[in-house]
Amino acid sequence: MADQPLFNRVAFIGIGLIGSSMARVMRRDNLAGSIIACARRQETLDACLRLGIADEVTSDYATAVKNADLIVIASPISTNESIAKAIAPHLKAGAIITDVGSVKQAVIAAIAPHLPAGVHFVPAHPLAGTEHSGPESGFAELFQGRWCILTPLPNTDSAALEKVTMFWRKAGSNIETMQPDHHDKVLAITSHLPHLIAFTIVGTADDLAEDLKQEVIQYSASGFRDFTRIAASDPVMWRDIFMNNREAVLEVLQRFTEDLTALQRAIRRGDGESLEKLFSRTRAIRRSIIDAKQA
Amino acid sequence: MADQPLFNRVAFIGIGLIGSSMARVMRRDNLAGSIIACARRQETLDACLRLGIADEVTSDYATAVKNADLIVIASPISTNESIAKAIAPHLKAGAIITDVGSVKQAVIAAIAPHLPAGVHFVPAHPLAGTEHSGPESGFAELFQGRWCILTPLPNTDSAALEKVTMFWRKAGSNIETMQPDHHDKVLAITSHLPHLIAFTIVGTADDLAEDLKQEVIQYSASGFRDFTRIAASDPVMWRDIFMNNREAVLEVLQRFTEDLTALQRAIRRGDGESLEKLFSRTRAIRRSIIDAKQA
Repeated sequence: MADQPLFNRVAFIGIGLIGSSMARVMRRDNLAGSIIACARRQETLDACLRLGIADEVTSDYATAVKNADLIVIASPISTNESIAKAIAPHLKAGAIITDVGSVKQAVIAAIAPHLPAGVHFVPAHPLAGTEHSGPESGFAELFQGRWCILTPLPNTDSAALEKVTMFWRKAGSNIETMQPDHHDKVLAITSHLPHLIAFTIVGTADDLAEDLKQEVIQYSASGFRDFTRIAASDPVMWRDIFMNNREAVLEVLQRFTEDLTALQRAIRRGDGESLEKLFSRTRAIRRSIIDAKQA
Repeated sequence: MADQPLFNRVAFIGIGLIGSSMARVMRRDNLAGSIIACARRQETLDACLRLGIADEVTSDYATAVKNADLIVIASPISTNESIAKAIAPHLKAGAIITDVGSVKQAVIAAIAPHLPAGVHFVPAHPLAGTEHSGPESGFAELFQGRWCILTPLPNTDSAALEKVTMFWRKAGSNIETMQPDHHDKVLAITSHLPHLIAFTIVGTADDLAEDLKQEVIQYSASGFRDFTRIAASDPVMWRDIFMNNREAVLEVLQRFTEDLTALQRAIRRGDGESLEKLFSRTRAIRRSIIDAKQA
C-alpha cells in the first residue's frame, strides 16, 4: 500500500523561487496528492505546467483554494492582505494556511484577522534563497540544511503545526520556533540590514561616472562583487520587507550608522589602533560562524 | 638546455598569503634560481623552509637582499618605509623592487625616495586574496584569472617593467596599467569601502547582547555571512590600507553615507517606490558583472 501523501491538495498563491522550490520538494517526496498554482501572470502559469510543478493552474483565488488542504502564500508581503481577504470565503474547513514571508509580525497582521474559524494559520520563514526569481529558478535542494523559522500564534492548532513542520523536515531544513517580534528583530540584523547596505553600496557605485563605473565592474572581484550578488535579489520582495519591518530595520540601521561614523572618525584622525582592534574582533566572529558550521 | 629562470635570486620581504603564493608560482614555473625569505617571526621562517617555498630564510634585511635580482616587498604598508630605508644600502645595482600593496600612492611615497639610482621600482597590486593569512594559506593558483594592476612611475625602467609583467602573466593574471592616484580611487570603491562596511556591520553585530549574538551567528546564512568572510581579512593589512588611502576612502564613504541616509528616509516615510527603483538598478549592475565575467 502506497503512503498517503502529507496533503491531499496543495494550492500555491504566488509561485516564484521559494514556492516553486517547495512544489519541487512535494513532487520529489510525493507529499501532495495534487498541486494547483495561482499567479497573475499567464507566463508564470505556463512555466508551472511546463516544469511539471503544478497539475493545474489558475489566476482565480477561489478556484485555487477550493478543496485545498494546504494553502501556501508565497507572494510579496504587500499582496498578503488582499490575498487573505480574497481566499477567506472559499477555504475548506480545517485547511492549513502557511506563508514564507521574511517578516512575521506584519504578515500575521495582514493574514490572520481575515481567516475564518476552523482554518489554521502556521506562519513560516525558510531562510533560503538565491538572487534569482521566478518558478524556473527553483530547485528542490534549496532548503537542504537551511533553517526554517516557524512563528506559531498562541492559538495555532498543534496538528497543523506538526504537518507544516513535517513538510520542512522533508525539505531538509532545521526547524526553529520563535516569537514573531523576536524573529523580526533577529532577521533585521542577519538579513535585512546586510541587504540594505548591499543595495546602497551598489547604488552608490551605479551613480559614478560611466568610465569609473566600468572599472568598478571590471575590478569587482576585490570585494564589491559579494555585495552585488546580495543586491541582485528580487526588488519587489525586498521593497516589501523594508516597508514591513520598518521599526526593527531602522533601529539596527541606527546602530550601524553610529558605528560607521566612529570608524570614519578613526580613519580621519589616523587612529590605527582602534581600527586594528575592531578588525581583530570581526575576524573572531567569522570563526564563531565557522564553528557553528554556518560558513 | 634548460630555460634560464626569469630571476636568478628572489628575496621576499614579508611572506604571508600573497608572498608565499608568489613564491609557489616561482617554484611551479621555475622562475627563480633561488628564493630567500625574510620575516621577523621565527615561526614564519620555519614555515617557509618546511613548505619548501624558500631555499634560505633570514630575519636580516641586508642578508635578504644581497645579490637579489628581484625583491618583493609583501608586508603591511606601514612597514614599507622602514624596509626601504633598511634595504637601500644593500641592493645590487640593477635590482628590481616590486610590492603588492593595496594602495599605490602611499606605497610609492614610502619606498621610491629611498632607493638608490640604478635600482628599478615597479609598484604592483594583485587583486587577489582570501580571508586567511600566513605562508601556510598561500597557493600558486591564487592569481589565476585575477587582475594585477601595475602603476609604473614616469621613470620606471621598461625592461624591469617587462620582467615583472612576465611574472604576473606566468601567475595567470590579467595585467592592467594605471596611474597610482587613479588606482587608489578605483580600489577605494571596489575594495576598501566594501571592506570598511563589512567590518562595521560585523562589529555592530558583535556589540549585541550575547544571546542575540548567538542567534545572529546561527542565522548568518541569510545575508550576514557574506559580510563576515570579508570582515575576517587580515587586521593589520587593512588597518594600513585605511590609514594610507584616507582621502579616497573618506570621499567614497561620504557618498555612501548620503545614499544610506536617503534610503533610511525612504523606509521611514514608507516610500516603497524609491526603494523598488533603486533595487531594480542594483540588480542590473549585477548583470553587468556577470556579463563582464567577473561573477
